[in-house]
Amino acid sequence: MAKRKPQRKTRPPAGSQRPVKPPAEARTAKDTGHWLWGRHAVLAALGNRKRRLRRLLLSEEAERRDGEEIARLLAGRERAPQPESARREEIEDVLVSPSAVHQGYALETQPLSQPGIEEVADAGAGRRLLVCLDQASDPANIGAVLRSAAAFGAAAVVTTRRHAPGETGAMAKSASGAMECMPYIQVPNLAQALESLKRQNYWCIGLASEAVQSLAEASLPERIALVMGAEGQGLRRLTRERCDLLLSLPTPGPLKELNLSVATAVALYELLARQH
Amino acid sequence: MAKRKPQRKTRPPAGSQRPVKPPAEARTAKDTGHWLWGRHAVLAALGNRKRRLRRLLLSEEAERRDGEEIARLLAGRERAPQPESARREEIEDVLVSPSAVHQGYALETQPLSQPGIEEVADAGAGRRLLVCLDQASDPANIGAVLRSAAAFGAAAVVTTRRHAPGETGAMAKSASGAMECMPYIQVPNLAQALESLKRQNYWCIGLASEAVQSLAEASLPERIALVMGAEGQGLRRLTRERCDLLLSLPTPGPLKELNLSVATAVALYELLARQH
Repeated sequence: MAKRKPQRKTRPPAGSQRPVKPPAEARTAKDTGHWLWGRHAVLAALGNRKRRLRRLLLSEEAERRDGEEIARLLAGRERAPQPESARREEIEDVLVSPSAVHQGYALETQPLSQPGIEEVADAGAGRRLLVCLDQASDPANIGAVLRSAAAFGAAAVVTTRRHAPGETGAMAKSASGAMECMPYIQVPNLAQALESLKRQNYWCIGLASEAVQSLAEASLPERIALVMGAEGQGLRRLTRERCDLLLSLPTPGPLKELNLSVATAVALYELLARQH
Repeated sequence: MAKRKPQRKTRPPAGSQRPVKPPAEARTAKDTGHWLWGRHAVLAALGNRKRRLRRLLLSEEAERRDGEEIARLLAGRERAPQPESARREEIEDVLVSPSAVHQGYALETQPLSQPGIEEVADAGAGRRLLVCLDQASDPANIGAVLRSAAAFGAAAVVTTRRHAPGETGAMAKSASGAMECMPYIQVPNLAQALESLKRQNYWCIGLASEAVQSLAEASLPERIALVMGAEGQGLRRLTRERCDLLLSLPTPGPLKELNLSVATAVALYELLARQH
């Protein structure tokens, strides 16, 4: 990972009209920085002490709305960037996705470093649930899963290193702040990860539409790895064979297939939140 | 609504290399046609006898994959268009949204004509649920609600005419086929619609995070209007006052707010599908 000195001192203060293109050295191949956008995602990132902050671009409206809150969030931090005023088009210019709904907030940062799966699996007593996504590839869908996982109280979201994307701006936007509090763990091999979770007393529960027993009917242990297949394809054979139990969500209506993030959220509600 | 003769006879057969831009007269201001895209959305539309079909563009891959199924779907229809072969860029060219994930499928059509709310409210016995969205504006979010409504067996999705969009391609894509089977009703005034539903023995249940009683704890009547506020804003005062009961969904995790379509799906699961 390329180390860069913090550039705070050379950055113009908020309100200056300097063009906001990052300097060339900030965009070299080795540079692992990326941009987050959207109000919730950016404010949550500013409040996360584990998040390295590089540049913060704000529209006039965003400064008016959240300027005080942002000053408060940055005040106690060591390497806090000076917020830079930017026009909407200037923000669009630095973001990779031109159709990104940034709402006037953009933050250059680095992907968070994530804990290992063993570490997350072993912490804490009581009901503990890890969401394991088998070949999910859409960052927005994964972000939506992170958000529901953080709302219903899962311990982590696990994907594979090869088929799933790392932290991206689109993922953080869709996670709406959950990227900062929900571990997102990419493992080299999901089947092996499930085997290792079993050794830590986890039950691997696969969601499968053809399963006879429903999630609501099953009596489940405290530690659960909830395994979700890719949308339209379901669980892969190897993953399915690793599951201790296959359960379904009833869909009594005319359409049988749920969106991946919706199915995951409903399962999390049933397993973690319903009896709260 | 402008009437156009079906143009089947003058269209080139599948495989021809004619550029696929629609003729100028198809794009006049009076023309209410629009494009649907994506495999599920287009196949479901082709199978819907109430859907008027104008033009169907297919990539080579889409024709290989679903050519037979599409021929079968079109066979019995009166004014069926000839499928036209198109390169991916040609499909992107006719779609309004250049970033649309069309998967090689695009269908020019007209918005479906929708039933009235009284008609839908009064049909059928047993549990009957209408989803009422108070000021939802994002077509993709509304499409996701249509999809979950169709999976869990709601009777209709109701929005306001002024603040919510009519049927769009992005909505149908996100609905993944549900646009064809789930009534999408836009009313002039939601508060009045709720009053009229009450006269038809519906209970208006508003979802509100601050409500003390949860959805799972409440014992509810057979006819329910589930009222959902806009994301981040909740129910408007006038809508809230029309509700017979406010209920919450527990979010024991660190993030308190769910995505609108996720919250709706979880509520539908609890109210319609869980005991199936």
